[in-house]
Parts: sequence; C-alpha cells; structure tokens
Amino acid sequence: MTMNNKMRQDPPADEEIKIILEKNLSAVKKASGVLALLSGEEKNKLLASVAEKIDKNREKIISANKIDTENAKGVIKDSMIDRLTLTNARIDGIIGSINKVIALPDPTGTFEGFTRPNGLVIEKKKVPFGVIGIIYESRPNVTVDSAALCIKSGNGVVLRGGKEAINTNIALIGAIKEALRENGIPDECIFLIDSADRRYTLALLRAKGLVDLVIPRGSAGLINFVTENALVPAIETGAGNCHVYVHEDGDLDTALNVLINAKTQRPSVCNAAETLVVHESVAAEFLPKAARALLEKNVEIRADEKALPLMEGAVPASEEDFFTEYDDLIIAVKVVSSLEEAIDHINKHNTKHSEAIITRSIAASDIFSARIDAACVYTNASTRFTDGEEFGFGAEIGISTGKLHARGPMGLNELTCTKYVIKGNGQTRG
Amino acid sequence: MTMNNKMRQDPPADEEIKIILEKNLSAVKKASGVLALLSGEEKNKLLASVAEKIDKNREKIISANKIDTENAKGVIKDSMIDRLTLTNARIDGIIGSINKVIALPDPTGTFEGFTRPNGLVIEKKKVPFGVIGIIYESRPNVTVDSAALCIKSGNGVVLRGGKEAINTNIALIGAIKEALRENGIPDECIFLIDSADRRYTLALLRAKGLVDLVIPRGSAGLINFVTENALVPAIETGAGNCHVYVHEDGDLDTALNVLINAKTQRPSVCNAAETLVVHESVAAEFLPKAARALLEKNVEIRADEKALPLMEGAVPASEEDFFTEYDDLIIAVKVVSSLEEAIDHINKHNTKHSEAIITRSIAASDIFSARIDAACVYTNASTRFTDGEEFGFGAEIGISTGKLHARGPMGLNELTCTKYVIKGNGQTRG
Repeated sequence: MTMNNKMRQDPPADEEIKIILEKNLSAVKKASGVLALLSGEEKNKLLASVAEKIDKNREKIISANKIDTENAKGVIKDSMIDRLTLTNARIDGIIGSINKVIALPDPTGTFEGFTRPNGLVIEKKKVPFGVIGIIYESRPNVTVDSAALCIKSGNGVVLRGGKEAINTNIALIGAIKEALRENGIPDECIFLIDSADRRYTLALLRAKGLVDLVIPRGSAGLINFVTENALVPAIETGAGNCHVYVHEDGDLDTALNVLINAKTQRPSVCNAAETLVVHESVAAEFLPKAARALLEKNVEIRADEKALPLMEGAVPASEEDFFTEYDDLIIAVKVVSSLEEAIDHINKHNTKHSEAIITRSIAASDIFSARIDAACVYTNASTRFTDGEEFGFGAEIGISTGKLHARGPMGLNELTCTKYVIKGNGQTRG
Repeated sequence: MTMNNKMRQDPPADEEIKIILEKNLSAVKKASGVLALLSGEEKNKLLASVAEKIDKNREKIISANKIDTENAKGVIKDSMIDRLTLTNARIDGIIGSINKVIALPDPTGTFEGFTRPNGLVIEKKKVPFGVIGIIYESRPNVTVDSAALCIKSGNGVVLRGGKEAINTNIALIGAIKEALRENGIPDECIFLIDSADRRYTLALLRAKGLVDLVIPRGSAGLINFVTENALVPAIETGAGNCHVYVHEDGDLDTALNVLINAKTQRPSVCNAAETLVVHESVAAEFLPKAARALLEKNVEIRADEKALPLMEGAVPASEEDFFTEYDDLIIAVKVVSSLEEAIDHINKHNTKHSEAIITRSIAASDIFSARIDAACVYTNASTRFTDGEEFGFGAEIGISTGKLHARGPMGLNELTCTKYVIKGNGQTRG
C-alpha cells in the first residue's frame, strides 16, 4: 500500500530512517513535476476520480477505520475516538469537500505582467511549491482535504497523520493512489509516513531540497517541535490564545453576545476566546452579567484581583492563565485602566491569531486594529469568524499565525509560491 | 553611540549575551510600534532628515571609515577594502539612494476588501512586520539602504554588519538616530549589533517573539548558519549558481552575447552565470567560439568530457564544479543530449536563483520556464537582469532564493506582511 514497508518495522537506526525517507521524498519530488504541469481541467478530472475511488472503497475504508477505533479504546479520550470515527455519512462529507475543491478556481498562473523599457517582458506567476509536507493529528478527513488541496495547487504531498488513524489513512491514501494511476499520474506524488516514530518527522523537517514547505496542524507542542527542528520552510498554524476586549464605550449587549459566542460556541477550536479583557469603567456593570452568562454555559472563570469580587463563582487567575490556550470551557478575566493597557496585555500574551474589541469609537477601533499584533483583528464581532469558509475562501489548509507568506486563513492561494518568467530577444545588461 | 556598550567588552558568558541582546531587542520592538503608526508623509519627512544628518556628519563618517580601512589593511583583500571605503562621492551616492526610497510609494495600507453575506467587512492590509534583522557583510552603504527601507516600510531594524566596517557603521547609525530624535521618534527603533562575536548573531536568530524576520545578505556560509540556527522566520537571499542553456535551435549569436554578459559583465555578483549547458547538436559549432570569447575575457574554462576537446584552453570539470558558485572569472561547461537532461542538470545543481535558455522554440521556452525551479527563468536574455532596479522596483533589500513570502528581487513590498481587519455590528457565529 505504501511505498516502503520497511518503515513499519522497528527500530531502524537514525541513519537508516533518513535514507529510507529521503529515497521516498525524492520519488515524491520527481512525481510532483508531472502534477505541476497539469491544466486546471486535468486536475479537476483527477480530483473527481479521487472522489469516485473513495466512494467505491467505502467498505474497505470503514473496515480499516474500525481497526483504528478498536485499538484506540481506552488509549485516547472518547471525544477523540469520535473525531477518529468514519461513518458512511462522514465519508459523504469527505466526498463533498473534494467537490468543493473542484469548484474552486485554479490557483496557478500569471497574475501580473509588465514590459521593461529594454523590451524584456516580465510575467509574475503563481506556481506550485513542489512538495508540501503536512503534519497533523487524528481526524482522517484532514488526510483527504490536504491531498485534494495539494493536487488542485499542483503540489506533491507528504502526509504524516496521527498514529491512531494509521489504518484509516492507509486505506484513504490507497484510494487516492488508485485515482492517480488511473489518470496516468505517477502515484508517488502522494506519500504517507506510516510510522509513529518521531524520527521520521524529524527527518522530514530536515530534508532540505526535497521538501519545499511543511505545515504543522495541531497542538502547540507539535508546532514548537517543528520550529525547533525544521531546516525546511515551515508555516506555524493554529495556536489560538484569543481575546475579547470590552472598551469603556462598548455596547454591553454586543459585548455579552460576542463573549459568549467566542468562548462557548465551540470551545475546542483555535479561534475560540480564552481571555476577557474589560475596561475598569464598565467592569462593575459588565462583569456580574458576564459571570452569570458564562456560568450558565458551565464556563469556569479565572479572574484577576479587580475582576474577582465582581464575578460570581470565579477563582483567582495566575499569570500563567493569561498565557494558556484552554481549548475548553474555562476563561481568564483581566481588568485594565486604558486601551493602551489592554493592547499591551494582549500583545504580550496572545499567539497572534484573532483578537476583538467591543467599542462605539472609530478612534479606539483604529488604534486597536493598528496596534494589535495578530492575523485577524475584529471590531464588534466574534473571533470565531477566523476561518477559510467564513472568509469565503472555500477549503482551508490551516490558519497561519506567522507573518511570512501567509497570515490568517490559508486557502489554495497560499499553497502556491511565485516565479518570474522573463522573455527577451537577446537583451544583455550594460 | 550604541545602546549598550557592554557588548564591546569581551568575553561575556552565553547567557549574559542573550540577556543583553534581548533587552535591546525589546526596546527595538517597543519603539517600532511608533514607527508603524507613522503616515507615508511622516516617514518621508523622517527619511529626508536622515539624508540631511548624513550630509551634515560627512567628516565624522569619513574619519570613522578611515579607521576601518586602516585596520583592514593586510587583513582583507584590496578589492574588499575598496568596497569598504567611503568617499564624499560615495556618501553622495548613499544620500541619492535615500532620496530614491523617499520617491517610492508607501508600501503599507489596505489593498483588498470585501463584505460577507452576514455584513462583516473584511479588509486585507499590508502592515510592517515589526522588527527586521539584517545580517550583512562589509559594504557600509547597505547599513543606510537597509535602515531607509525599514523606516519606509514602518519596521524597526536590527543591523549586524561586517566587523571591518564597525566604526563606519557606528557613525552612520549615529547620524540616523539624530534624525529620529529630531523627529520625535524613539531612536531605539534602530539598533546596531556592534560586536563581532557570532554569539550575538546566534542570540538574534533565536529571539522568538522579539524579531519578526531575519534577512541574511552574504555568503553561502552565512546563509547556512542562519538556516541551521534560526528559530525566527528568515528569508534566504543571494546564493546564485546560475546557468545559461543553449538549446539545439538557439540563435548562436544571441547565445554568445548572453553567455559573455552573464559570465563577465560583473562576475562577483549572485546573478552572474557559473555554468554553460549546451545541447550536443550545437556543441561542435558553438563551444569553440564560446571558448575563444571566454578566453578573451580571461575566463577559466572547466569542461565536462564532451566539451573538453571542443574548447581551447579548457581543463576537466569535476562534479563539484557544477555545484560551485565561483563569483569569479571561471565557468563550468556541460553538454547534454536533450532539453530534459538540461532541466534535470540545472534543477539538481542550481540555487533556485536565475536560469536562462537560448532557443527559437516557444515549446522549449515554455517547458524550460515551467520545469526549472528558480526565482527567475529567462528566455533569450541574460541572468544579470535579476535585480530590483532592473525589474523597476526601485531599491532592493536582497534577492530571495526561497519560496516563502518573497521570491526573486525583494523591494519595499516584501518588507510588509498582511493583516485582516474586520468590522462588524455584533456578528456572532451560528
């Protein structure tokens, strides 16, 4: 099923791991050259075929998934097993996602062009990166989403999914490879690292020249591991310590709606709020209401000194709380005496993801928007909107919290880089 | 003159170096917030003042430069001492460059905007990165160019120049800081690492959260040091192992002109050609002419087996030659039997900078342009055009050979990143 079964025997030596992986990566690199030259129509035909093969292999995929969910019982939390489980309806969802990617415009091609006084014609093109590595955790739909987005953008792809989903991923990649072969594309352009040994991930991160971009999708721990070890270019995604700040002139009904939505509508995701920051002049009026509404939604409140007496059921917050992405029904609360203090607090503690201010003042909104260091800055709206679908980009490969290349929701466009193609008639430089 | 004179005493412990540097970087980060909020007009006024202070401090700068050039005698090559030397005419050149940066449009601000069906207004803005670190070698004009480009793009800047230019750089930065203070801008937004101790560079590369982007400008050794050690985002610039490929149907006069221009017009720069690749069907006609023209320009020829007997004065090339960026009057020559072989040879050995094909065929030009992995791909023109000025971008901070964020000549635009600013009226996610 996968390229080199040796990977699943253990434990090979470090050098052997490097050699096995690099051999496979070279094959991905070579095959990705074929993918890069396909037209938009050809890529869509291939994706339709991928959808068809996944449909045809439903039974096989669900059987493989049953092995994974059985193995996972008692090993991971029930909520994680639920994320891992594939049903017929979820496979319909996966196929639906592929069809959405088919409907998106081709992200590659010339987008700027100009002629220089010496007659050189300079075109700026969006082109595939080459080979993209995606490192992610247990949801198997990410396997197909990532593959579909990479195919549509003309990139070869190396997938390193969660070890709990290994049999499911092998079955899914098997179906995708079937589609590739049927369309005359070398099936080496997609490669699954089917070993849980972290040394493969390390070798992937250090494979300069064979991998053009790595995107880690997952926990802060994974993202730090990538930053510490990557020699290949990497984009950090998904760490979200997001804030809602209620300014002195903010509409308090709007503040309450946005707070409850940002904290509780889906607390496990990166664009959920983790800290409420409130101007002292509205603290006495707003915080008791906020506490009641949060408690009603079973949110644990960890409040600073000034907020504590105003919030029913609150416990004291530590400095560490303000650095924590709970991804859970917990919120930290901080009272500030100025917009400046709010901005400084947020910039010190945030992960550069999404931040919101509730205010009636254009000046306060402008200062907050300009000075907050984050991918997305909201005025009078929930942080939960930071999402490729919500922004209208269609499918999303992740939300970049870095500043290089992509910031915020990353769609198909962000899976391309640029190239200058210059045509002359013998020009030389004087 | 500089922020912390402790840096010039030696040798402090590693931890002490980290603490000193991070204290200074925090000050740059804080001060850069002021720069980021300036209007285009205010930034131009500041730059005009920088030009004026450099003009006013000419004597001081030239005296400091004399100390550097005296110290460098016998230590570095005469050609390097020439690059290091500042004269009144060269200071005029530096001031001229500042005026060119003033004339460029402000790179920051909103460039895209759309309204979502739920009424959210999403603006995509170009904003300063925050703090940019530039690591470079001995030419002191780079100090002022880098500072001017960072000011114009609203970024704080940390400069780590060559140790040979240390007194010159201190004098130049002193003049720039004078201008900042006179304009009411905290002069901490520019910071010179005035120590040759590489541990400061290392601490800079690892200062996550304090530095938003590092750009190394210099040798392959420096660039590798950065890739190996950086925890902060970095863009690789300037490694240039460039090729000229003469296809079977190429016009041989054009081929000769382009070859001689690309190799000899300025052999020390990154966009000069290092290898000639020739299709075997024109080798017998082209290579003897090429050899004569190259020898006339004092170029040493290192030829593969097939080229060797056809090129007067040539010596045999080793495989290592094809990986070498000579930056000198030396060229490697390779004969291939197909366009495919030429592409594979170039992709294997190049540094992803600039590559040229000489051909009359649209099909060959298209295949070469699509399949060559490089920032700039030329048809029937010299690789020497890869340059911010030649592309019409005005000043240039370097030529990116990476694919993330910027590829090819990097101008002011590439010193900005993006931010989404979203305005609502209470929207929450359903």
